[in-house]
Amino acid sequence: MDVLVANNPLKAQSFLQEIKGKTPLFIATIATTETGKILGLSAAGANPDFTDFTPPADAELLLLGKCRSIQGVPITPDGIPTPALITTSALHLADIPVLVVNGGVKVRPQVPYIDVNGSPGRDIRSGDSVDNVEEVIERSTVVGEHLAKTSDYLVIGESVPGGTTTALGVLSALNVVAQGKVSSTLPANPHDLKAEVVAAGLSAAAQKFGSFRGDPIKAISAVGDPMMAAVAGLVIGASHHTPVLMAGGTQMSAVLAVINALEPKALGNLAIGTTRWVTQDQTSDICGIVTQFCDVPIIAADLDFGASKYPGLQIYETGLVKEGVGAGGASIAAMAQSSGAVDKHILLKEIERNYASLMMQTKNSTNSSK
Amino acid sequence: MDVLVANNPLKAQSFLQEIKGKTPLFIATIATTETGKILGLSAAGANPDFTDFTPPADAELLLLGKCRSIQGVPITPDGIPTPALITTSALHLADIPVLVVNGGVKVRPQVPYIDVNGSPGRDIRSGDSVDNVEEVIERSTVVGEHLAKTSDYLVIGESVPGGTTTALGVLSALNVVAQGKVSSTLPANPHDLKAEVVAAGLSAAAQKFGSFRGDPIKAISAVGDPMMAAVAGLVIGASHHTPVLMAGGTQMSAVLAVINALEPKALGNLAIGTTRWVTQDQTSDICGIVTQFCDVPIIAADLDFGASKYPGLQIYETGLVKEGVGAGGASIAAMAQSSGAVDKHILLKEIERNYASLMMQTKNSTNSSK
Repeated sequence: MDVLVANNPLKAQSFLQEIKGKTPLFIATIATTETGKILGLSAAGANPDFTDFTPPADAELLLLGKCRSIQGVPITPDGIPTPALITTSALHLADIPVLVVNGGVKVRPQVPYIDVNGSPGRDIRSGDSVDNVEEVIERSTVVGEHLAKTSDYLVIGESVPGGTTTALGVLSALNVVAQGKVSSTLPANPHDLKAEVVAAGLSAAAQKFGSFRGDPIKAISAVGDPMMAAVAGLVIGASHHTPVLMAGGTQMSAVLAVINALEPKALGNLAIGTTRWVTQDQTSDICGIVTQFCDVPIIAADLDFGASKYPGLQIYETGLVKEGVGAGGASIAAMAQSSGAVDKHILLKEIERNYASLMMQTKNSTNSSK
Repeated sequence: MDVLVANNPLKAQSFLQEIKGKTPLFIATIATTETGKILGLSAAGANPDFTDFTPPADAELLLLGKCRSIQGVPITPDGIPTPALITTSALHLADIPVLVVNGGVKVRPQVPYIDVNGSPGRDIRSGDSVDNVEEVIERSTVVGEHLAKTSDYLVIGESVPGGTTTALGVLSALNVVAQGKVSSTLPANPHDLKAEVVAAGLSAAAQKFGSFRGDPIKAISAVGDPMMAAVAGLVIGASHHTPVLMAGGTQMSAVLAVINALEPKALGNLAIGTTRWVTQDQTSDICGIVTQFCDVPIIAADLDFGASKYPGLQIYETGLVKEGVGAGGASIAAMAQSSGAVDKHILLKEIERNYASLMMQTKNSTNSSK
């Protein structure tokens, strides 16, 4: 299979063996935070205010094959399409079912979703970023328990613009050294800006590095985002019954730290599934974060868009976007289901096919809106 | 198996054979309508205004094993507990997972639910009872498509106080003769009152018997309830992939009529699963409704509470309650999963165990609230 192992090879191979030939349920967890609108932090939207629309549009793309909340598909300021394009291609190839969990969004998706009573996040510089964290965790745990019984295993992805900054916030609050280690949608990772934002948040909450150790609910409430509560609950509820592939980059390492503090037993049935662009990224260090507190394996879809005929896909090789909406985990799931018969070349063909068709829609809708 | 066949024995046996040994996903679809508050129509709540709380409390009971929106559990004016007690016992025995779909409720449940953008229903005497029907059907269809891929089959139940009156409304609007044939939570079925209410609704909508034939969306919008749109969509989306047991009494016959008008192909993969109290009811005629327009089989859990040690359960034998929250379908599913090893006696023991424990809670909470 075109899957790379980034740490803990024994556990990683055992996890891969367990999901081979199996069909998961994919859960896309969406959330927004005002943190994502801080200039220079995120490329997950054509401009900062647009980040409110990226998660619902991603959810629509996964469920309908097209977006409704926006014309075309979510793009970076340079016009590079959302990684949900990779996710939807992988899920479609393997006929993997999808549900959307609304962790807390400002703009509700125009598709069905599971409501766990979350609300959108505030700027973490307030030191008071997320409401209702405990209840969202509890409701999501109930969802995870039931969904785990429906499927061989779960793949849980996220769409949260600004999410690596909130990840740095929660990791720092929980005593995990992550400065300079979280990933970015941008090739030039704005580590200093992220550190400033997190420092401001901790200071506003009258806290410092590590001072929320042992209290992940307060950590998320102060300097996190609403996705974290929902995904932590889903994983805790599900992992007693079934393996869970946490589909994301360094954002998922923050959720892991939350789970580690809430219910460490749940860690035994997990892996992080991401992309090669994250695990081989020179500007971040997902393994260096995770190994500080647990031995959950990290695996990566060995995607390579260098040979794509589309410049808009080739550019992924420069470090733009890298991951999101569970792109890496969905790719791993599609490859595992077919025991490797679906490989990175077949995946790229499907992604190119969808890229061409969606870019055509985007172009047409842009023209028609002129 | 302790399952009775009420019509179409060939198709019924074939459906039962298909679900034998299989584990379904149970979907509880909740909705409320002001119609349920018309005096004398429904016993699904201690008093009319209480019917707003019955569906969310039923959902909570299924997911948590206890209610949150109310103290104790939903009861009839005589103190008889909700049929969700039967449902939760059956699902628990067979470890069947549950999801809640919110078709449109006034009081949101304090548990996670799938949102399909429905809103609570108005009194059908207005002739304008449900908003947004087409969109709810469309979103629920997407949910049904995805959930169908997660499970061997689906069981879809409902909780809608007043739902047999809206069933009479939609059946009449769609040209199905149902007057005197819909069921009731009350032993003395208030057929005349239901007929008056429906006549008032059709008249307010400037319509008459059969005049919405071929337009089920308008029929629900005028004289239906929000559950119908959600369940019709779920069934249409799911039944292409997997068998669906529509778990309910005559309310489900109205949904069948909607499906028959929207997507008759979907009828081929369905059965109605209800209780003996419905199929042997002298005051209603579910077979007489369904056979007017389709040959979907009707099967019934052969429940018998006559030998129960609890008077509150024995009373089911007098025709009170009869069905609801998918009680019959969930019982059939639990028996089918074990290929009959779980029989009506084992089911009754589990129901009695839960009854005793929940009545104790109800008593304690009533005492403590005094």
